[in-house]
Amino acid sequence: MLINCVAYQNGRKLADIAIADISEYVSRPDCFVWVALVDPTPEELDPMTGEFGLHPLAVEDARNGHQRPKIEEYDDSLFAVLHAVEVTPEQGAGEFTVGEVDIFAGRNYILSIRPRTMESFTDVRARCEREPELLVHGSGYVLYALMDAVVDRYFPILDDLESSLEQAESRLFEGTSTRSRIEELYGLKRRLMTLKHAVTPLMESVGKLYGGRVPQLCVGTQEYYRDVYDHLTRINGAIESIREMHATAISVNIALISLAESEVTKRLAAWGALITVPTLIAGVFGMNFAHMPELQWTFGYPYALAVMAGVDLVLFWRFRRAKWI
Amino acid sequence: MLINCVAYQNGRKLADIAIADISEYVSRPDCFVWVALVDPTPEELDPMTGEFGLHPLAVEDARNGHQRPKIEEYDDSLFAVLHAVEVTPEQGAGEFTVGEVDIFAGRNYILSIRPRTMESFTDVRARCEREPELLVHGSGYVLYALMDAVVDRYFPILDDLESSLEQAESRLFEGTSTRSRIEELYGLKRRLMTLKHAVTPLMESVGKLYGGRVPQLCVGTQEYYRDVYDHLTRINGAIESIREMHATAISVNIALISLAESEVTKRLAAWGALITVPTLIAGVFGMNFAHMPELQWTFGYPYALAVMAGVDLVLFWRFRRAKWI
Amino acid sequence: MLINCVAYQNGRKLADIAIADISEYVSRPDCFVWVALVDPTPEELDPMTGEFGLHPLAVEDARNGHQRPKIEEYDDSLFAVLHAVEVTPEQGAGEFTVGEVDIFAGRNYILSIRPRTMESFTDVRARCEREPELLVHGSGYVLYALMDAVVDRYFPILDDLESSLEQAESRLFEGTSTRSRIEELYGLKRRLMTLKHAVTPLMESVGKLYGGRVPQLCVGTQEYYRDVYDHLTRINGAIESIREMHATAISVNIALISLAESEVTKRLAAWGALITVPTLIAGVFGMNFAHMPELQWTFGYPYALAVMAGVDLVLFWRFRRAKWI
Amino acid sequence: MLINCVAYQNGRKLADIAIADISEYVSRPDCFVWVALVDPTPEELDPMTGEFGLHPLAVEDARNGHQRPKIEEYDDSLFAVLHAVEVTPEQGAGEFTVGEVDIFAGRNYILSIRPRTMESFTDVRARCEREPELLVHGSGYVLYALMDAVVDRYFPILDDLESSLEQAESRLFEGTSTRSRIEELYGLKRRLMTLKHAVTPLMESVGKLYGGRVPQLCVGTQEYYRDVYDHLTRINGAIESIREMHATAISVNIALISLAESEVTKRLAAWGALITVPTLIAGVFGMNFAHMPELQWTFGYPYALAVMAGVDLVLFWRFRRAKWI
Amino acid sequence: MLINCVAYQNGRKLADIAIADISEYVSRPDCFVWVALVDPTPEELDPMTGEFGLHPLAVEDARNGHQRPKIEEYDDSLFAVLHAVEVTPEQGAGEFTVGEVDIFAGRNYILSIRPRTMESFTDVRARCEREPELLVHGSGYVLYALMDAVVDRYFPILDDLESSLEQAESRLFEGTSTRSRIEELYGLKRRLMTLKHAVTPLMESVGKLYGGRVPQLCVGTQEYYRDVYDHLTRINGAIESIREMHATAISVNIALISLAESEVTKRLAAWGALITVPTLIAGVFGMNFAHMPELQWTFGYPYALAVMAGVDLVLFWRFRRAKWI
Repeated sequence: MLINCVAYQNGRKLADIAIADISEYVSRPDCFVWVALVDPTPEELDPMTGEFGLHPLAVEDARNGHQRPKIEEYDDSLFAVLHAVEVTPEQGAGEFTVGEVDIFAGRNYILSIRPRTMESFTDVRARCEREPELLVHGSGYVLYALMDAVVDRYFPILDDLESSLEQAESRLFEGTSTRSRIEELYGLKRRLMTLKHAVTPLMESVGKLYGGRVPQLCVGTQEYYRDVYDHLTRINGAIESIREMHATAISVNIALISLAESEVTKRLAAWGALITVPTLIAGVFGMNFAHMPELQWTFGYPYALAVMAGVDLVLFWRFRRAKWI
Repeated sequence: MLINCVAYQNGRKLADIAIADISEYVSRPDCFVWVALVDPTPEELDPMTGEFGLHPLAVEDARNGHQRPKIEEYDDSLFAVLHAVEVTPEQGAGEFTVGEVDIFAGRNYILSIRPRTMESFTDVRARCEREPELLVHGSGYVLYALMDAVVDRYFPILDDLESSLEQAESRLFEGTSTRSRIEELYGLKRRLMTLKHAVTPLMESVGKLYGGRVPQLCVGTQEYYRDVYDHLTRINGAIESIREMHATAISVNIALISLAESEVTKRLAAWGALITVPTLIAGVFGMNFAHMPELQWTFGYPYALAVMAGVDLVLFWRFRRAKWI
Repeated sequence: MLINCVAYQNGRKLADIAIADISEYVSRPDCFVWVALVDPTPEELDPMTGEFGLHPLAVEDARNGHQRPKIEEYDDSLFAVLHAVEVTPEQGAGEFTVGEVDIFAGRNYILSIRPRTMESFTDVRARCEREPELLVHGSGYVLYALMDAVVDRYFPILDDLESSLEQAESRLFEGTSTRSRIEELYGLKRRLMTLKHAVTPLMESVGKLYGGRVPQLCVGTQEYYRDVYDHLTRINGAIESIREMHATAISVNIALISLAESEVTKRLAAWGALITVPTLIAGVFGMNFAHMPELQWTFGYPYALAVMAGVDLVLFWRFRRAKWI
Repeated sequence: MLINCVAYQNGRKLADIAIADISEYVSRPDCFVWVALVDPTPEELDPMTGEFGLHPLAVEDARNGHQRPKIEEYDDSLFAVLHAVEVTPEQGAGEFTVGEVDIFAGRNYILSIRPRTMESFTDVRARCEREPELLVHGSGYVLYALMDAVVDRYFPILDDLESSLEQAESRLFEGTSTRSRIEELYGLKRRLMTLKHAVTPLMESVGKLYGGRVPQLCVGTQEYYRDVYDHLTRINGAIESIREMHATAISVNIALISLAESEVTKRLAAWGALITVPTLIAGVFGMNFAHMPELQWTFGYPYALAVMAGVDLVLFWRFRRAKWI
Repeated sequence: MLINCVAYQNGRKLADIAIADISEYVSRPDCFVWVALVDPTPEELDPMTGEFGLHPLAVEDARNGHQRPKIEEYDDSLFAVLHAVEVTPEQGAGEFTVGEVDIFAGRNYILSIRPRTMESFTDVRARCEREPELLVHGSGYVLYALMDAVVDRYFPILDDLESSLEQAESRLFEGTSTRSRIEELYGLKRRLMTLKHAVTPLMESVGKLYGGRVPQLCVGTQEYYRDVYDHLTRINGAIESIREMHATAISVNIALISLAESEVTKRLAAWGALITVPTLIAGVFGMNFAHMPELQWTFGYPYALAVMAGVDLVLFWRFRRAKWI
């Protein structure tokens, strides 16, 4: 589905144009066309391939989807695949949904495709149009603006992961370890890997858009791409930290489970002693010896019960002091 | 066994030719010969060595088999070894079989050898012949097409591994941990290593077929080799993810086993208490004191039984509330 | 809030100057201005942007804060973000607070901003003014002096971590493993990651300020930047050591918990035997056989008690010898 | 001890020569001398040092032994240290013995020294003499042939390790985990490290003998050195796989031990219940209440025994169904 | 404290000279001065700074101590910091003491400083003076000789670690795991990290003293520095091996502790059964049923005891066969 098709000149919007007019605007020297598609049919994608001279391998990637993030150079054009990571709205615990954003960028065109539905980029377009002094850099700047928008949306995802870790940490040392806590830690890891999968390959690709030799398209906007790279590095660093703390948390969790088991064993053994010791005493007085004088005592029975209770009190006090009960 | 021996010119099939005629076609400037062998005998392999001028070390590798994936440059020809990973058909749980594909590629020849029987490449040949505009690139394109076919067959293998992991994950948190689950996780790891073994060395080798200085054969088809590289990177990234989730799953499994043991211990201890406490009471009333008035009561016995049952009910209720039973 | 605004010439302080006079001093060839701000309002920051020609992306970073440490080159100026790590004063166990220091450095200006309140740099300024032979190197030297001050403050933090690890180690092998020890190890890891987060990215950035091609600003003071780099490498090496010992400590802790559990099990079983064996003996003498001669012995009962005690003594002695009790 | 001292010219053996004649042959332009020593005394080694102009540091290394594998360039000669790994014959379980092979190679000489006794290289010499078309490459080819022979002997070692791992794997899931299985896994790791120690440093060194700038000696035989490198890479890859599977096997083993313990606990508890429940029943009928009508029944005793047996049967059946027994 | 101050010319000792005469000898073209200090006071260090033109940052490092190993280039001079690792003599178990060796080396001087007392370098000086043909290389050779001496002293330390590991390994599989074994493994790790700390950074630094561009001082003695590098690589490789085996040993130790616990549990349960089964039998014969014919048998009591003993014998035999006892 076509969302927008707009021509820009010298950083300012010229007009919403029809697909058929693209070739006219594309041929003007200081003009570029910005097309946005959502879940395009092959019929919608085909004319773009012709108008902009897209490379068949890139078009095939966009058609198939499920690519890993990358930025590929085809002659003087770029093909970028980004992962848009979003918290799945209906799930409180926060599973992630991964959408894909494909961007074709040439000297005089930008074509963005969102193969599966997700948050739109209309705010990016609006911001670009409000800042003509930046948009004058052309399609290279628009590519940056789109990438920056996708990357900026990783930060709340990262915050979500960091607060999940903190929550898991604080619950680690409260109460005993339960099955749900382990499940929570495992889920956190899976979501972490999803974000890492979106960030790491992109970081490597963006790192080639500034510094030494860069694609022609990015020459005037290198500092902006370095800024995106810096954001990605920051997210990546945070992911690594979470990953390491997570591994420590899992180890610590195993230690805590062993420790809890150890404590339960002690507690049970203590209560067991409180039962078996009087059982032994009762057994003694249940023996059938002919000469057991205390059996004839008037208060022999209460004495025996008192001895049982007394021994248990002493044991209880000692176990309590040793923190076994 | 010889499967095919075909000469091509300008992207079109000339004719099926005899082994003896190879040298004639190879000497024509814009012509190349594509030979496919399966489990060749030394007698079948020897003439190829002569016709195409294959390097003895490469021929020896092809003869011995059991190489790791690699792409080696010998003057202006290439020798590629690929692993063809297939799900062993008779085994439901999915063990993998690894076949080998050896490809010799020179300016005017392609020789593919499959030392152990496996899926054929006739579909690759058919597709190449349907696209003469691509086949016109010559043997470099055929080499790409064969590699692409092998690599594309890794994707269902990868899907198999990913769904195995998901299955293992979902079973991890259901019921208690059993021996078979550990065995399943171990088997997954072994299959993962098999795929990794096929992918990682190949990825390193393919990475040298595009970008800076590349073998003469691949100059016109660099973007295709980059596409293969991109596929391999994607598979490799997925393997790394599975590997890391797998390690976490093993840790989590150990935690779950400890936890389950801890829960069993509690349950047993609770049931133990329900047996030992009335045993103590019975022991008390089994003592032989002369003066135990309750022993003479008409309803002493039922009372005693009621006390036993009552104490057990209270204990049972408390254990149930603490989720020990 | 403005802290200082001073002009320097040939390594000597000229005068405290007003914001409005900055442009005058900046234009003099061998003169530079050093401005220090704390928690600046946008109104305070804006004139600086104009006077010194700061890059909008850098200014945005300084405004937003929460950057990771980095040193970025914008044309012939540098933008450095450092993390100032401090022990949170009110907490004895030593949680860390991370402040941020942003420094803009150009040929003839230094602008330092501390977005969140923390230790000041007045001592750095004082030291610089005492050593005019070094300050004559200009803003490149001041940038070094500020970075050196921040990095020097990492050493007590590192000492704190090392002594925490030593403390944890020495407590590991004393007494039994408790919940608080695990919590302590986990907290140590978190603090370690905080310091690592401040050091590692900075180390990478500083590594580019000496050696091969360096920013113009640092040309005359390369050896000083190498010294900062050397300090960071030293801290980084120490962090890695702590990290590795910490991982070993966690493993060892798990082993110790298992071992302690094993010892508790043995101790309990030994005491259990001391109770159940006499219970068996009492049970035997509680049987109702008509012909049990010893039941009629005058000293049968004391004998029985003696046997019970004797058996327990033997058991106790054996358990003690086997170190089970 | 001197084994051989032979002069070669144009790929063909000239003659067995005396030590004293070496200098004469060495000075001929297209001639080289191949000397083999075993456990040489300093008196045997000294003349070689003079004849061939060996570097004192290399000679010292050869004299001392216990070097790590390496290939060092001294002007236009090479000094190679290889590890010869062999299965110690008298030990069935297969401990490894590591011998050392030192090779000095110059334009017109090859000197191989085996400091500790091991398999000889006479087969290498024989093969070289059978292939004069290859031996014509001179000392560079002989160096290759010797290295190739050592490296080829790693493959059975590797097979030994792989089958050890497979054996350990198959035993992992049979029966319960025993001490000997852990010991076996530990021994496998030690042997793996021995092979890794021989392979990894050598691989790094051989990697410098082909490709970009290579020592003069290897210029004409680069493809052969690449072949050795390829073998080493293959072995190294296999070592890494074994290492990773081994780590997984150790983790899995810990899980299996925990699981086995858990199963033993259940089994014991079940059998315990089969004993303690009838003990409770016996205790009840052992109470001394005056009014316990069933005690007077003619078949009270058999009934009681039947109840005990019945309860145990029910419990046994339930435990069996729950797979606890 | 000044140890030596000697002038050398053309590889031969000229004379012991006074501090005041240094400048005279330093100015001669083919002459160099070698000064050795131990724990120097600032007053002793200051004249050196002037005479040799030492860089203030290097002098500060030497003054402060506690540096990590490094080799820094200051113009045409080098500043090397080495760690001298020694077994602390009074402790049998072998804790390590780390001393520091600082060496300033210029074209015509060598200044070695040992900030904390340790083994001296008089043997190095003696050896150098005995080999004038090597000492003729000048201060670059002396720097090598000092570094070589420090590095050679790492080998016994490494042997100590290796034999500690072997000892720990052999004790791992003997007897049950005890607290002291874990402590031993932990101590081994700490000592390993101490050696690693001395070796790894030095290895990186020495790697820059041979090969491509090297400091002027080392040009004629590159092969010697490569030899030092080779020694460091060997030690580093051995450290990595120990580290990996150590990690495996810790894992294996945890497995062994679990296994030992499991075996103890079985043993205890077996003995428990030997007690509880006769207790049940005694309980049965302690029941008060009126009609229990066996109670009236003359040999009922001995029969009952025989049954108890018989059942226990059968159980004992079965437990022994199952290796539970």
